Amino acid sequence: MSKMVGEPAVRYEGSATGVAVLTFNRPDRLNAWAADIAADFYRHIDHAEADPDVRVVVITGAGRGFCAGAHMGSLDRLGELDGDVDVSAVVGDRPPHFLLELRKPVIAAINGACVGIGLTHALMCDVRFAAAGAKFAAPYARRGLIAEHGISWILARLAGPGVARELLLSGRTFPAEEAQRLGLVTEVVAADELLPRALRYAEDLAANCSPASHRVIKGQLAADVDSDVASATERAEKAMAESLTRPDVIEGITAFLAKRTPEFPPLS
Amino acid sequence: MSKMVGEPAVRYEGSATGVAVLTFNRPDRLNAWAADIAADFYRHIDHAEADPDVRVVVITGAGRGFCAGAHMGSLDRLGELDGDVDVSAVVGDRPPHFLLELRKPVIAAINGACVGIGLTHALMCDVRFAAAGAKFAAPYARRGLIAEHGISWILARLAGPGVARELLLSGRTFPAEEAQRLGLVTEVVAADELLPRALRYAEDLAANCSPASHRVIKGQLAADVDSDVASATERAEKAMAESLTRPDVIEGITAFLAKRTPEFPPLS
Amino acid sequence: MSKMVGEPAVRYEGSATGVAVLTFNRPDRLNAWAADIAADFYRHIDHAEADPDVRVVVITGAGRGFCAGAHMGSLDRLGELDGDVDVSAVVGDRPPHFLLELRKPVIAAINGACVGIGLTHALMCDVRFAAAGAKFAAPYARRGLIAEHGISWILARLAGPGVARELLLSGRTFPAEEAQRLGLVTEVVAADELLPRALRYAEDLAANCSPASHRVIKGQLAADVDSDVASATERAEKAMAESLTRPDVIEGITAFLAKRTPEFPPLS
Repeated sequence: MSKMVGEPAVRYEGSATGVAVLTFNRPDRLNAWAADIAADFYRHIDHAEADPDVRVVVITGAGRGFCAGAHMGSLDRLGELDGDVDVSAVVGDRPPHFLLELRKPVIAAINGACVGIGLTHALMCDVRFAAAGAKFAAPYARRGLIAEHGISWILARLAGPGVARELLLSGRTFPAEEAQRLGLVTEVVAADELLPRALRYAEDLAANCSPASHRVIKGQLAADVDSDVASATERAEKAMAESLTRPDVIEGITAFLAKRTPEFPPLS
Repeated sequence: MSKMVGEPAVRYEGSATGVAVLTFNRPDRLNAWAADIAADFYRHIDHAEADPDVRVVVITGAGRGFCAGAHMGSLDRLGELDGDVDVSAVVGDRPPHFLLELRKPVIAAINGACVGIGLTHALMCDVRFAAAGAKFAAPYARRGLIAEHGISWILARLAGPGVARELLLSGRTFPAEEAQRLGLVTEVVAADELLPRALRYAEDLAANCSPASHRVIKGQLAADVDSDVASATERAEKAMAESLTRPDVIEGITAFLAKRTPEFPPLS
Repeated sequence: MSKMVGEPAVRYEGSATGVAVLTFNRPDRLNAWAADIAADFYRHIDHAEADPDVRVVVITGAGRGFCAGAHMGSLDRLGELDGDVDVSAVVGDRPPHFLLELRKPVIAAINGACVGIGLTHALMCDVRFAAAGAKFAAPYARRGLIAEHGISWILARLAGPGVARELLLSGRTFPAEEAQRLGLVTEVVAADELLPRALRYAEDLAANCSPASHRVIKGQLAADVDSDVASATERAEKAMAESLTRPDVIEGITAFLAKRTPEFPPLS
């Protein structure tokens, strides 16, 4: 595994604007996923979730890649493996969908190669911006692998099961522009505009949206995904009644009518 | 609440072509939703559903807005509210998804601002046309609110849960053109072409499609949404066998082969 | 029913590249679906699934149509039918979704009219290419019919339930270009480029992807469609552990690192 003394595998930067930026920091291997990145990533995400000063999280990569898949170096001893292999030694011990369960919005700023488990993590974020020309792929079938760690589920949910079939069975590489057309990316911008754009978006959310609203809405979306409309609406009525007991609603509407920026309390 | 003596909150116009047009009619408040609109809306929809001469329903708004969300005037006494608030006093007593359960196709002609509960109602229609430049938003997080009345469910179904996350967590405003790209709108046309276009589409359905087919297909779509393909296909086989006992099939195929307009019976 | 002595209703061509091509071969009726096509189609599909030399299947149509719906000639005696009609006499005895359950990728090369049960079969394939200008329609409502054989399910899954509602309630004709925009088609190419393009794509999959991966991934996609993310991820972990007992993984990664074409074993 690559080592850079003094260089964390994932950098963490907080800000006065309520946005935390996590940067995959193994550019020499295009930030290929391995235990070092996993460990730092989980630690920083947990910190951001717990820190009341953080309202929105941005994830990006240093260098030319976002995350180019599982680090092949980690698979060196593959020939020795059998069915009892401890997969967590390679990918970390959290299924990527843990990101869907966070209380705070997570935004991926996809600066370059976004492949395999890197793509899976990006798709489990709430929002995706991408640099023009960034390459995407889910090349499992080309490596003799299967659709790992929930990629078949999230790809089918975000782009529909037809697109998921095509991308997973071909394992082909596709550019950011196609990713946007397929519904996988919100916006494609020039590479040097990517992080500024994602930060501007994140800072808008941190400044103008209610953290309590974000928490509840993320819970609703997670619950709705396999639910019928009547149940979803019932849950919404209950969540709405609860929301009226928090200060956020009155602040939000008062600020809106007064045309001023709202001041929402942090998550406790 | 705004009052206009002699002006109904929702106008109703039937036609000899089998199309009923409902027009939200509080242009001074961009047709913001309140009890007056809700009451008229439910009454007219029920009438259209029951009237055998109506085959298709079109919903639009008078003035510059389609429906700009919940009427803030209705929320005046928000400071007095607690968790036991009677939400129906503001939004009416029907969850917007009642529209999905109608027997007849409902087409939204979105002439302008389509926000919050206005967007929810529009998304619960079967088809959406929009005027170029019309503004859409689900700004709940910016007001300290939650995803109300089923919007999180329907948005995730129509545009995918990734798009739903992005739009609900940011609460940002987006134009009709992006709504179309995201799969929320079938067609965007110039503002002065909107109602003629929607009416032409509705009249084609009323003239050439079987009301019984519409009723059954809407039931199939509602049942399929949380179902596996084998069950959906079984239901289709049963519905197909039943369809062969109605005159519509023979009329439809005979007219098709004879290259004439079919004459389908109305719903009883 | 049309007869062409010596001409099979569906042609079958194998190839040294691992791709089998099935061609609907009743061009005089735009390959309208009837018992003759159904019988040949099932037989050839079963052969392709069983033949270890076949890794990918391509389906296309001879002449100007892909498949223009149910053959009206088969419906001649419709006036005599009642609710007990044996539907399989017209459509064959397999629900079109049997295609979703195959182990091998199936690619539709849609050369022309793709209507009704022809559209349903195309949508049940894994990947779709279409000729520029090819016409699509699900015109059931215009014939007094219902959404037959699972079309309402697959259309809602591939393009979302909003698009499915619009296309099924209107029954309108839409071109390949719109089909692509709606997520129903991966790529639109000039008519004379269609089959070469689809074959090139199929041959890439046959040469570079693992048949075992294809089989497992197709199973994952089928299982995920009505599943939550945690279950999908658990299934993926299990499938991943099993994959490590097959030679495909080591071959796939070794070939990738050596920058050579992998040699994956056929399905037994």
